[in-house]
Amino acid sequence: MFRTCLENVREMMPLIHNITNYVTVNDVANALLACGGSPIMADDEADVEDITTICGGLNINIGTLNARTIPSMFLAGRKARELGHVIVLDPVGAGASRMRTETAISLMKELRPHAIRGNISEIKTLMGWGGSTKGVDADLADAVTEENLSSVIARVKQFAEEINSIIVITGALDLVCNASRCYVIRNGRPEMSRITGTGCQLSAIVTAYLTANKENDLEAAAAAVSLMGLAGEIGWSRMQKGDGNATYRNRIIDAIDLMNGDMLEKGADYEVC
Amino acid sequence: MFRTCLENVREMMPLIHNITNYVTVNDVANALLACGGSPIMADDEADVEDITTICGGLNINIGTLNARTIPSMFLAGRKARELGHVIVLDPVGAGASRMRTETAISLMKELRPHAIRGNISEIKTLMGWGGSTKGVDADLADAVTEENLSSVIARVKQFAEEINSIIVITGALDLVCNASRCYVIRNGRPEMSRITGTGCQLSAIVTAYLTANKENDLEAAAAAVSLMGLAGEIGWSRMQKGDGNATYRNRIIDAIDLMNGDMLEKGADYEVC
Amino acid sequence: MFRTCLENVREMMPLIHNITNYVTVNDVANALLACGGSPIMADDEADVEDITTICGGLNINIGTLNARTIPSMFLAGRKARELGHVIVLDPVGAGASRMRTETAISLMKELRPHAIRGNISEIKTLMGWGGSTKGVDADLADAVTEENLSSVIARVKQFAEEINSIIVITGALDLVCNASRCYVIRNGRPEMSRITGTGCQLSAIVTAYLTANKENDLEAAAAAVSLMGLAGEIGWSRMQKGDGNATYRNRIIDAIDLMNGDMLEKGADYEVC
Repeated sequence: MFRTCLENVREMMPLIHNITNYVTVNDVANALLACGGSPIMADDEADVEDITTICGGLNINIGTLNARTIPSMFLAGRKARELGHVIVLDPVGAGASRMRTETAISLMKELRPHAIRGNISEIKTLMGWGGSTKGVDADLADAVTEENLSSVIARVKQFAEEINSIIVITGALDLVCNASRCYVIRNGRPEMSRITGTGCQLSAIVTAYLTANKENDLEAAAAAVSLMGLAGEIGWSRMQKGDGNATYRNRIIDAIDLMNGDMLEKGADYEVC
Repeated sequence: MFRTCLENVREMMPLIHNITNYVTVNDVANALLACGGSPIMADDEADVEDITTICGGLNINIGTLNARTIPSMFLAGRKARELGHVIVLDPVGAGASRMRTETAISLMKELRPHAIRGNISEIKTLMGWGGSTKGVDADLADAVTEENLSSVIARVKQFAEEINSIIVITGALDLVCNASRCYVIRNGRPEMSRITGTGCQLSAIVTAYLTANKENDLEAAAAAVSLMGLAGEIGWSRMQKGDGNATYRNRIIDAIDLMNGDMLEKGADYEVC
Repeated sequence: MFRTCLENVREMMPLIHNITNYVTVNDVANALLACGGSPIMADDEADVEDITTICGGLNINIGTLNARTIPSMFLAGRKARELGHVIVLDPVGAGASRMRTETAISLMKELRPHAIRGNISEIKTLMGWGGSTKGVDADLADAVTEENLSSVIARVKQFAEEINSIIVITGALDLVCNASRCYVIRNGRPEMSRITGTGCQLSAIVTAYLTANKENDLEAAAAAVSLMGLAGEIGWSRMQKGDGNATYRNRIIDAIDLMNGDMLEKGADYEVC
């Protein structure tokens, strides 16, 4: 029942602590507000423990990681774990540089996040499955397709079991897997790759959904992924002649803002494997 | 005469130095341009004194404060004070962490800003009036209402006198107080809380208004607050079916951009206590 | 043939490494996607060499330079030069502070960028031609006009020869010069100065255009400048009653996204001196 997951977020209005990149941070904040959560950003070592303490969930995104913020990610993460808060990791660009790969793996191992969301190349890098990368975008050679779907799912389930996390892989097909089940989600539009930040927004929304749906985490993560894809579809349907990627960016967040349980329940397009 | 305050900003085009958070910084820049000011952002210790010297006002916002930028805030502030420039402080999240509370209080005490703008929880924290907080949003328990309005105003006037600053508290009701007078402003829309950054934008605009209206500072701050609320109303009136918070964000800045003295004078909804 | 320049970018989809300011970084990313490139942002000393290695071009923008990112600019730049990658420098605010002026000149001298893009005041500062500045905007006294055009071009060509770079000066008239030729481009709208970031976007787009058109660099830079100005014209033509600078910002990026070779070829307004 994706409907219930959405309604729980809108009712609880979870406060989410984000340590995220400065490229998409404004969209992340507005997308969190749109989905019913409440954002706060703090990334200084002296600030993050206090801030994460008053929040319900922590979203760590390494998109513009640096020597100052990496220690803050670990500090905030340890405190969040100690308090039993939800932690989501977005390993932006893992595979694209040694610093990103090593930091993402260390965060994964030490913080044991409840969910990790990335594109297939980033997740393959974390799995040690030889993912390549095209910067912060997935490499075409890594793409999840109808042909390789069942073998990818099998390996991702195994990885989810090993690290005891929900693994969210987004792309043309989206996967949301734990050790035993995998949602294959077919919502979304290819044009979403022409704007920056839908992945970052989704990681923040997944954090809010997990925070407000702790008893039902796999479904909550799947609901968040479906919400984002459906917002991409609805946003696209509202595009007028002359509109391009900047307007599409706004339309997607608008659609998240206006989404209700009925729309999500009806529009979600997925199967469980 | 709010009209004159607005026209003075459009004529002077004051250059405003912003040391602000990376979440809403782009909206702050575009809102400053929209209101008739000119923005510059600089936050390195080696850069801020030169930059603030060529500006007319300094807007300090602690939304994503860190060990590197806090010393820059003090350096820029001391230079601005030495030069007689306007200083505005936005104590984002004061009360939410020890670092934010202590930094905001130190900035207030050492820089003696011409105005401080925050939500009621942040201002209560600065006043030592036991404000609670919900991250960067005001706590509902702190809300200024018609019922507690006169007692809140009395205490805020006293605080304004103690620290010799204009105190701007925004929420459902907005207050702009000095030691002797208080504007109670009823412009704005509740939906403004569904987008990030209207508070940050307002602090920057207050800086521009004070810079261009030094002889008439309380009214200038009130004009800026009324402008922001009225832009929220006009922006909301232009929302179409399917528009959500991302579009609303743009509509508000658009309305600031198109505002003139007549519109502000006619649309302002306030009383002076 | 600006058409070919544009089509080469859309076909190659060059990955561009940006070390840029946090004010306009989101617009830079979306503008790069809109023009057919692919953005990645990384600014930590331990990250920039790996990241620039997988890219085709490097865009260095000093808009919010600081003690942490300046060494990263040099490190990334040296690696990019070693690899034969395109480097573009955007000296935001050169002339407005000693730190900005000195850093811009050092980057220019040590990295020998393929192109430098700034407003006339910033470029005059780099030339040692006594440019003044109004923060990050050009000083009116420096403006390139029909009257001083030929003398400005002569000096800029000489400077381009001295430093062996393409010099791009944007304003009411745009100049794209090397030692022997200068494109004078008359696309654009004065209203573009009412939004932040069109200059930053253009520097990133110039990087993409140079990366995808190495054999034809002066024309590629001119095509990028014409594209930006034409997008400003098209975006302006789509403005509705009630639209202001926030909507205009989106309309310009939209127009970049929808531009094709025919439109650019037909809409470009320039002469070569």
